[in-house]
Amino acid sequence: MSMTQSLKRSLQQTPDAIVAREGERHLSFSQFGDRVARLAGALRKLGVKRGDRVAMLSLNSTRYLEYFLAVPWAGGALNPCNIRWSVKEVTYSLDDSQSTVLIVDDAHAAVGAEIAALAKTVRTVIHAGDGPAPAGMLSYEALITGTDPVEDAGLAPSDMAGIFYTGGTTGFPKGVVLSHLNLWASSMCYLLEGMFPEGVVYLHAAPMFHLADLGMTVAVFLRGGTHAIVPGFTPQGVTDALVAHGVTDMLLVPTMIQMLADHPGIAPVRDRLRVKRLVYGASPISEAVLERAMVAMPGVQFMQVYGMTELSPLATCNGFYNHSPEGRAAGKLRAAGRATFGVEVRIVDPEGREVPRGTVGEVIVRGPNVMQGYWNLPEQTVAALRDGWMHTGDGAWMDADGYVFIADRLKDMIISGGENVYSTEVENVLAQHPAVAACAVIGVPSERWGEAVHAVVVLKPGQAATADELRAHCKAFIAGYKCPAQVEFREGLPLSGAGKILKTELRKPYWERKGENN
Amino acid sequence: MSMTQSLKRSLQQTPDAIVAREGERHLSFSQFGDRVARLAGALRKLGVKRGDRVAMLSLNSTRYLEYFLAVPWAGGALNPCNIRWSVKEVTYSLDDSQSTVLIVDDAHAAVGAEIAALAKTVRTVIHAGDGPAPAGMLSYEALITGTDPVEDAGLAPSDMAGIFYTGGTTGFPKGVVLSHLNLWASSMCYLLEGMFPEGVVYLHAAPMFHLADLGMTVAVFLRGGTHAIVPGFTPQGVTDALVAHGVTDMLLVPTMIQMLADHPGIAPVRDRLRVKRLVYGASPISEAVLERAMVAMPGVQFMQVYGMTELSPLATCNGFYNHSPEGRAAGKLRAAGRATFGVEVRIVDPEGREVPRGTVGEVIVRGPNVMQGYWNLPEQTVAALRDGWMHTGDGAWMDADGYVFIADRLKDMIISGGENVYSTEVENVLAQHPAVAACAVIGVPSERWGEAVHAVVVLKPGQAATADELRAHCKAFIAGYKCPAQVEFREGLPLSGAGKILKTELRKPYWERKGENN
Repeated sequence: MSMTQSLKRSLQQTPDAIVAREGERHLSFSQFGDRVARLAGALRKLGVKRGDRVAMLSLNSTRYLEYFLAVPWAGGALNPCNIRWSVKEVTYSLDDSQSTVLIVDDAHAAVGAEIAALAKTVRTVIHAGDGPAPAGMLSYEALITGTDPVEDAGLAPSDMAGIFYTGGTTGFPKGVVLSHLNLWASSMCYLLEGMFPEGVVYLHAAPMFHLADLGMTVAVFLRGGTHAIVPGFTPQGVTDALVAHGVTDMLLVPTMIQMLADHPGIAPVRDRLRVKRLVYGASPISEAVLERAMVAMPGVQFMQVYGMTELSPLATCNGFYNHSPEGRAAGKLRAAGRATFGVEVRIVDPEGREVPRGTVGEVIVRGPNVMQGYWNLPEQTVAALRDGWMHTGDGAWMDADGYVFIADRLKDMIISGGENVYSTEVENVLAQHPAVAACAVIGVPSERWGEAVHAVVVLKPGQAATADELRAHCKAFIAGYKCPAQVEFREGLPLSGAGKILKTELRKPYWERKGENN
Repeated sequence: MSMTQSLKRSLQQTPDAIVAREGERHLSFSQFGDRVARLAGALRKLGVKRGDRVAMLSLNSTRYLEYFLAVPWAGGALNPCNIRWSVKEVTYSLDDSQSTVLIVDDAHAAVGAEIAALAKTVRTVIHAGDGPAPAGMLSYEALITGTDPVEDAGLAPSDMAGIFYTGGTTGFPKGVVLSHLNLWASSMCYLLEGMFPEGVVYLHAAPMFHLADLGMTVAVFLRGGTHAIVPGFTPQGVTDALVAHGVTDMLLVPTMIQMLADHPGIAPVRDRLRVKRLVYGASPISEAVLERAMVAMPGVQFMQVYGMTELSPLATCNGFYNHSPEGRAAGKLRAAGRATFGVEVRIVDPEGREVPRGTVGEVIVRGPNVMQGYWNLPEQTVAALRDGWMHTGDGAWMDADGYVFIADRLKDMIISGGENVYSTEVENVLAQHPAVAACAVIGVPSERWGEAVHAVVVLKPGQAATADELRAHCKAFIAGYKCPAQVEFREGLPLSGAGKILKTELRKPYWERKGENN
C-alpha cells in the first residue's frame, strides 16, 4: 500500500516498460528499480532510519521521482520543499521536520548550500546533478553506483509517508503529516474517477514538490504508467514534451491551461497530440478557456478536482461528462465536484450542523484521505480535525445531487454593504469578457461599504477594454453590488508555487494602507 | 471507508436511484437508508455495542443487504453464517464469535430456533420474514417500523468489519477477522480492474454469506450501483432475474457458469440479456465452457479472481483481455491472474525464499487486504501471517509477466511414484473431452505408487465415454504418470456453499478404507 508496493508490482509484471521520460533520457522499471534500491541503501548508510525525514529542493526531474520512491524504500519519510520559498522558509521547514538529508539539483545547489549552513539538523547535502558535486556535497550518481541495492523497508499503511508543508500563502508554513494510506486512498480515487487508464503517459508540468502533483505521481505508479517530465511549466516546454513523449494525461491549474491553449506554438503540432485527459484544480475553469483548450487539444476530456494538502489531496471530483458540450447543459461545470469514493463531504454552519442544500457553509471532510495532523502543532490539529472531520475553511454550498460549489475561501469572501460577495462569482463573469486573459477579485477597504469589490485584470495581448466596459459587461450578468467598484489592469498575476493566484499579495497594499493585515 | 460511508455518499448524491431489486420489490437509496438507520437503532436498543457481533443465517435477500449495512451503522461487526453448515457448526461459530443477536429468514427459522437454544451468547433472535415472527423471535419489520433512525457510528478503517468463518471444507471452522480497510482495499481493486462501472446492476446469485459475494457487495456499494437478488443459484432463477432486472454484472464459480451456459432456458431470452461482465473464481475456466457461455450471453466479458477469505478476498485478477478470443493466444487463460493494486504476491519455497519464475512454490501475499488474524487462534495466526505475509497454502508458479498459475492446493497435490501431479492440470485436460461436463481429480491410496491419480467424471446428458477413452484422451496431452489410473462416473459432484468441489468428500471413502484421514 506504500508507493514501493506499486513499484514492486511493476517490477514483477512489466520490468521492461518505460517508467520515466525526460528530454532524450528514459528509464525502464528494472533500471529505475535498481537505482531506487541503491539510493535507498545509500540513504540508510547515511543514517536515515525508519521515519526519518529526507528533504528535496529541486525542479522537476527523474531524480525527483527516484527520491519519492527511494525514501520510503529506505524506510524514511518525505519533505519535498517549495522552490518558490525564501531561504528562511525552507530552513524553517527543514528544522521543523528535523530533516537530516537534503537533496538539491543544479538549479538549487547554491541556495541549498546556504540553507544547509543554517539548518540545524541537516547532516548531509546530496547534489542530484550530472556534473561533479560542489564542495561539501555528496554526488547523487556516485552514491547510486557505489552502493548495493537493499530490500524495501516494507512500510505499513499507517506509517508516515512524509511531512508536506502547506503553501505558505497565509501565515507560517504548517507541516501536514500524511500516511501511506492517506496517499493511497486519494490515488485509488483518481484512477476510479477515470484518470490514468492503462497505457497512461503522464506529464509532470506542475511542480513535483506540490502535493497536487504528488497525488498524481502515486496514482500513475499504482497504474504502472509512464512519467514524462519537464523541469517546470512553460507553454513551449510543455508543447514540446506533449509531442516528444506522446503524453496522454496532465494536471494543470486553469491559469496554465489558458496559457497553453493560447500559446501560438500549439496549433502547428495539434495533429500530433495524444492528450486525452486534463485534470485541473485550485479553481473552476471558465467555459471560454475550456473551449479554447478543446480546440487546441482535440479530444481532450476535463476533470476538476477539489482538495488540499490536508486531504492527500482529494475530496471531490467533477468528472468528464459535466465538462462535455452535452454535459454542460446540466449546469455542473462550475461545481468542484462531489465526494469521491470512500470520502464524506458535508457543508456545515459554525456550530457544525449540516446546512440545507443551497446554503453556503464550511466544507468539512472525513475519510481515509484526511491527514494525521499538523506536525508539532497540537492546537492547530485539534482546531482543524474535529471527530475526524477536516475543517477546510472553504465556503461552499451543495446542490440536490451532492455537487459542491465553492463560494470562496471563507476569508476571501467580500462583505460589501452587508451583502456577501463571493469572488469566484465575479471572476467567472469577468473571465467571459473577450478581452480578459486572467483576473482576480478581492475586497479592499471602503469608507462607505466596509469593503469594496476590486478586480485585478490581465488583458489578452493586442486586446483592449476599459474599466467602464468591464463593469458594464458584469452588470449584464450579476447584481450591481457584486460588480467591481474598481478595476486595476496588470501585466500578470502573482502565482504561488502551485499556480494559485496569491490574493494575499494583491490585497496587501490596500490593507497595509489601512493599517490592517488581511 | 466503512460500507456506511458508501451508502451515505449515495444518499447524498443519488437518493432516488434504485439500490435493490428482488422479485417484484425494489428500494431506492433513501428508502433503504431509512430502513438501515432504523434497524441499526433497533440493534443498539438490543444492546449491540461497538464491535459486538451480529449473526445472520439466511438465503440471499434484500434484508441480507440491510443487515450488511445496519450492523456497521450501529457500530457492530458481522458474522454471516454458512447455510450449508450443520447445526453444530453454526452454533460453534456463534459461540466462538460471541454473537449476541442472530437474524434468520423463513427458510432458517426452525433451524435458527434450534441453534439459538444451543448457542451460549445469543440473547435475541430476529425473524427477517414477511409473516408474523415465530414464538421467541422478534419481528424484523416491527423493529424497523418501531424504531427511530440513528446516526451512523462512523467506524474507522481499522475497526473490525466482521468475523468470517472459512469454508469448513477441511478441519474446524476458523474465524477470519477483517477490518473495514481490508474490505475496502479489495473492493477498490475490483472497480479498478474494470468490474462494476457506472450503471451496474449486479446479481447476487452466489451466496451472500460468502466473502466472495460480500467483496462484490462492498464494491457495488462503492460504485453506488444496483443489487439484484435471487435467493440462491438455480439456472432458471438466474435466467429470469437476468431478464427482469437488466443485470449487467455477475459473480459465479465455473460450475455455475457451465450450468447456466448449458441451461435450455437461456437461449430463448438471449436477445434480452444485458450481461456485460462475469467474474469467476475458485478455479480456472475451460475454454470449452468459456465459449459456450459467450454464445449463451453474447458480448459478456470474463475476469478471473483468485483469493481467499483471509485476503478480503482478492489477491490476483486475470482480466477481460486474456479471456477474449484474441487475448487467449497469449496463453494466460489458465492463470489466476497477477497481483492486483497495492498487493504484493510472491511464490516461495518452504524456507520463504522466492523461487525462480516457472517453479512451483507456495503463494504468499502482503497488502492492505490481508486479514487481521484468526479470531481466538493466536497460533494459527502466527503460522499463517509471517512478517505481514499471508501464507495461502496454495501451490503455484509465476510466469515472466507476473502471472500466477495455481498448480493446486498444496495439500491436494498428488504424489505418485515420487512424481508430483497437480490435479488441475489433469482436470483441465479431462474437461476438454467433448463428453465431459465436470470432473475432479484426487489422489487415492495405491500399493504400488503411494498415491494413484483418480478421476471423478460427470458426463454431459446424452453423451457417453468409457474410462479407456478418457485415459487415451489424456495421454494425448500429458505425461502417462499424470493420467487417471481410475475413472469413476457420477451424476454430480459434491459442492461447498461457495460452489467449490468438495474434494475432501470425494477422497473420504478411499482413505477411510486405508484407516487414514486425508
